[in-house]
Amino acid sequence: MRRATYFDNNGTTALHPKVLQAMLSYLSEQQGNATSRHIFGRSARNAIDQAREQVADAVGAHPSQVIFTSGGTEADNLAITGVAQALEKGRVAISSLEHPAVSRPAEALRWQGWALDQVDCNAHGQVETSALEAILKNKVDIVSIMLANNETGVIQDIAALGDIARQHKAYMHTDAVQALGKINVDFSGLNVHAMSLSSHKINGPQGAGALIMDKRIDIQPLLYGGGQEKGLRSGSENIAAIVGFGAACQLAANEARDRQGKLAVLRERLEQGLHHLDAVIFGAGAERLPNTSFFAFEGIEGETLVMALDKQGFAVASGSACSSDNTEPSHVLLAMGIHPDIARGAIRVSFGNNNELHEVEAFLQALEGELTRLRKLTAIAV
Amino acid sequence: MRRATYFDNNGTTALHPKVLQAMLSYLSEQQGNATSRHIFGRSARNAIDQAREQVADAVGAHPSQVIFTSGGTEADNLAITGVAQALEKGRVAISSLEHPAVSRPAEALRWQGWALDQVDCNAHGQVETSALEAILKNKVDIVSIMLANNETGVIQDIAALGDIARQHKAYMHTDAVQALGKINVDFSGLNVHAMSLSSHKINGPQGAGALIMDKRIDIQPLLYGGGQEKGLRSGSENIAAIVGFGAACQLAANEARDRQGKLAVLRERLEQGLHHLDAVIFGAGAERLPNTSFFAFEGIEGETLVMALDKQGFAVASGSACSSDNTEPSHVLLAMGIHPDIARGAIRVSFGNNNELHEVEAFLQALEGELTRLRKLTAIAV
Ligand SMILES: Cc1ncc(COP(=O)(O)O)c(C=O)c1O
Ligand SMILES: Cc1ncc(COP(=O)(O)O)c(C=O)c1O
Repeated sequence: MRRATYFDNNGTTALHPKVLQAMLSYLSEQQGNATSRHIFGRSARNAIDQAREQVADAVGAHPSQVIFTSGGTEADNLAITGVAQALEKGRVAISSLEHPAVSRPAEALRWQGWALDQVDCNAHGQVETSALEAILKNKVDIVSIMLANNETGVIQDIAALGDIARQHKAYMHTDAVQALGKINVDFSGLNVHAMSLSSHKINGPQGAGALIMDKRIDIQPLLYGGGQEKGLRSGSENIAAIVGFGAACQLAANEARDRQGKLAVLRERLEQGLHHLDAVIFGAGAERLPNTSFFAFEGIEGETLVMALDKQGFAVASGSACSSDNTEPSHVLLAMGIHPDIARGAIRVSFGNNNELHEVEAFLQALEGELTRLRKLTAIAV
Repeated sequence: MRRATYFDNNGTTALHPKVLQAMLSYLSEQQGNATSRHIFGRSARNAIDQAREQVADAVGAHPSQVIFTSGGTEADNLAITGVAQALEKGRVAISSLEHPAVSRPAEALRWQGWALDQVDCNAHGQVETSALEAILKNKVDIVSIMLANNETGVIQDIAALGDIARQHKAYMHTDAVQALGKINVDFSGLNVHAMSLSSHKINGPQGAGALIMDKRIDIQPLLYGGGQEKGLRSGSENIAAIVGFGAACQLAANEARDRQGKLAVLRERLEQGLHHLDAVIFGAGAERLPNTSFFAFEGIEGETLVMALDKQGFAVASGSACSSDNTEPSHVLLAMGIHPDIARGAIRVSFGNNNELHEVEAFLQALEGELTRLRKLTAIAV
């Protein structure tokens, strides 16, 4: 069987061969627990320290600001719940675009007596500073707005939003899980107190992520135990995954310009073809990640199209690919004011560093064929 | 440089080559996010389902009872905090022997208004049923007692303790992280509602663990997000680690008899030598894991001996190896009524499946040499 073409890199990415190489000795030789003081433990500790520097360097942070977690979801939960637990009950504000890894812990705070505000976006999927300012007329303790959206790829002006949050003495978090590796991410320039990252979205291994955190912020751990990560994240460290995350960060930083250029070319060709097929492209009026295209065709169900394309050997996503079974129309599109009927048609192509132009050409052909076929079926059904 | 001898398998173990083999295709080929519906996603989902069966089979549980986590610490926290959050504030009781992954979340509950009881052990490190019964005269909601201790290796009669907890309508959890792979662990026979496991203690990869859980128990997630693991543990699944954990469980189950036999031979030889050197062996009067020996020599500091042995090429642990820097005498030994001066001398040898008898012989020789040397130094210092 011909291997299918993978266009779901916002869902997860392939491990880079160089990253696997960096991990392999940690998987094939005896390792120590990084808390142990013998030679095996010290060598594990050194490997983690090096990865901490690599991650910090890739995002303009200091190694001491890196808290390693099991992934992006844990980093988001720590950023919201961990900070809330160190405060009196108050008010949390998140954008209407957040990934469930941010919105669900925020909702959980509400059950515990917190007030939860939603910061709306405009029709392009952008959070305007005026929208945040309106919400901050109330005293808000915690603000979380994502740097780049996983579905549309729309990028927020976090530096400006963070500045406003800080003026209002709110703690400001941004979920940079999708931004890392696709655009330049500079912690110190973003005006935030905390930022979430995930390894498997940048050709690193699953099982590692980080919360980059201003150390002046009080935070309580979600996981208690052996006191790893300065007591903020207990649990034996996943050394191979952390090493791989560090290597993936370094590679992404070194290759940033080339990768971004190549992704942009692929997307350019895709959207040229999509326009030709009369697609609606969501968020196209805003600055977006170079690899992401989220679109729909009138009268065609996204789920149906994804399945049809899967049969044709193309793996794309419908709505959000990183949450489990969910047939509701995308909350991101609804927040942008898209009609539910159109939103139900949404499918996402997200390119990665392994994709090639000929795959895009083949995809456009397959897409055209499937659209014709599905439209005929619909015409008959009506 | 000659590679040092690793005797710290309760800290962490080497990945089994067959386990790495099972993981490699998930690390070297394009994988999907397990929540995605295209072919890459479905294949990841299948891999996780298979691992879930392997883990369940190894411990006499049903696959639907397996909640995958990032490790043993997260499983313990979920077992304690996740269950507590689904209850009204009440009373939690844990043994005096627990790993910080259990005792710290229990202490955190106390800050939130829960009452915390300690179930004491006897001089052998065993929790007697009468000790639990005495505590359960109060209405206790949550009981947690470990199946095998990480320091002494002492095994508890969890079936009997669980039976009592159930009679008193308490929810009963056991931390089986150290027991798995070293003794027979049968969830259905243990009379518990929940049981924690960790992959990297059984020659599986770091980054995976599980809470085995009676589904009738209400529990709230620690991590909210995409709704993975039936909503009980959100976050993109660490597919390679889960696959490796499954493979490690299957191997451990298949090879149980051989492994346990071999470990017992190594420990027998070690302790024969230790007796000859006048060591105090902790918990020797109780049933213990076949691989673990925790001992001390009068007048010799454990930390000093560990460092000296490290220089001689032997990696052993002092006190608990899976919590971070800690120079207090072991809480486990203090709970057993051992004098702090003796407890400070404690060092732990924990054998693994890669160890060989000649390593034990060489260790005993090195140990004898170091004891002589250190005693001379002490004599001069006095
Ligand atoms: C924006 C965003 N935040 C958080 C996450 C969760 O990260 P992880 O998959 O590492 O748990 C994802 C993807 O799943 C995401 O796209
Ligand atoms: C008894 C016990 N419970 C829990 C843990 C924590 O498990 P993990 O290292 O997978 O976080 C350990 C070891 O670290 C342990 O020995």
